[in-house]
Amino acid sequence: MKAIVAYVQPFMLEKVTDALRARKIHGVTVIRCEGFGRRIDGKTPHYEDAAVELGYAPKAKIEIVCRDEDEAAIVQTIRESAHTGRHGDGKIFVTEVTQAVDVRTGAEGKAVL
Amino acid sequence: MKAIVAYVQPFMLEKVTDALRARKIHGVTVIRCEGFGRRIDGKTPHYEDAAVELGYAPKAKIEIVCRDEDEAAIVQTIRESAHTGRHGDGKIFVTEVTQAVDVRTGAEGKAVL
Amino acid sequence: MKAIVAYVQPFMLEKVTDALRARKIHGVTVIRCEGFGRRIDGKTPHYEDAAVELGYAPKAKIEIVCRDEDEAAIVQTIRESAHTGRHGDGKIFVTEVTQAVDVRTGAEGKAVL
Repeated sequence: MKAIVAYVQPFMLEKVTDALRARKIHGVTVIRCEGFGRRIDGKTPHYEDAAVELGYAPKAKIEIVCRDEDEAAIVQTIRESAHTGRHGDGKIFVTEVTQAVDVRTGAEGKAVL
Repeated sequence: MKAIVAYVQPFMLEKVTDALRARKIHGVTVIRCEGFGRRIDGKTPHYEDAAVELGYAPKAKIEIVCRDEDEAAIVQTIRESAHTGRHGDGKIFVTEVTQAVDVRTGAEGKAVL
Repeated sequence: MKAIVAYVQPFMLEKVTDALRARKIHGVTVIRCEGFGRRIDGKTPHYEDAAVELGYAPKAKIEIVCRDEDEAAIVQTIRESAHTGRHGDGKIFVTEVTQAVDVRTGAEGKAVL
């Protein structure tokens, strides 16, 4: 099983969750957070080493646990629906999940997903 | 070492943290979040493919890092104390932790837990 | 790739993010949370088994994904900048990340970091 975590623009969140819903991907968790990255001065050419300030910006963190075989499609769905083409669009990360338990049924492993 | 993450009903949170405290499980973090799952229309039979709407609901995310040998007992404690038997009770997931460091003492690895 | 997660005192957060910024570590996410640990009665000798109460305290969770070779330096930066020497300074944990995707560019893997 895999945990997919995405940090996206808060104003893209509804589009992302709509896209996940349309593909019948359930069990999505959203956490409000602050992203702390580079802030580019709009008047300055976008050089890595010039006029780069840092600032906080609100972000939305999306968390989904899925079966291994669904990872690629979910990552693709998030990427497409969160995409604006501008800096700050966010990133998606995947980690391994070793166990899953359903609180209601007691089911374990992939059956939970 | 293992990271145990549970998404539970917010109104069960105090019962869960009381149960963890009673078993002397420390180092618990709670994050308020929104769960985005299926919403079942109460008037409709609970078929997977009928009258399933989606909606956000407030959830509480619990995070604990523990030694491998304590995983099963902590998962069991959370499952029992978060259980109501109704949909939305939540899920528990486990991932591998490769390193731990104590900010105060500088201790590393399992000694931190 | 590695995910570094640190739970620190909220009042140390600015010092930690300043230290990360000074080392050109970008892509830091901050989540406000509640830590649920031991509370030591100030009038009582600090014995593990005496006068230990439990209480919530606000904490800040810091999340960074980095290349394997940067793990040690980032952990050290957080530890030094979050350190006060008092109980509650917090802990740092590391987990393995198996995939990374940039939403804007579509880049994958270490190139994202």
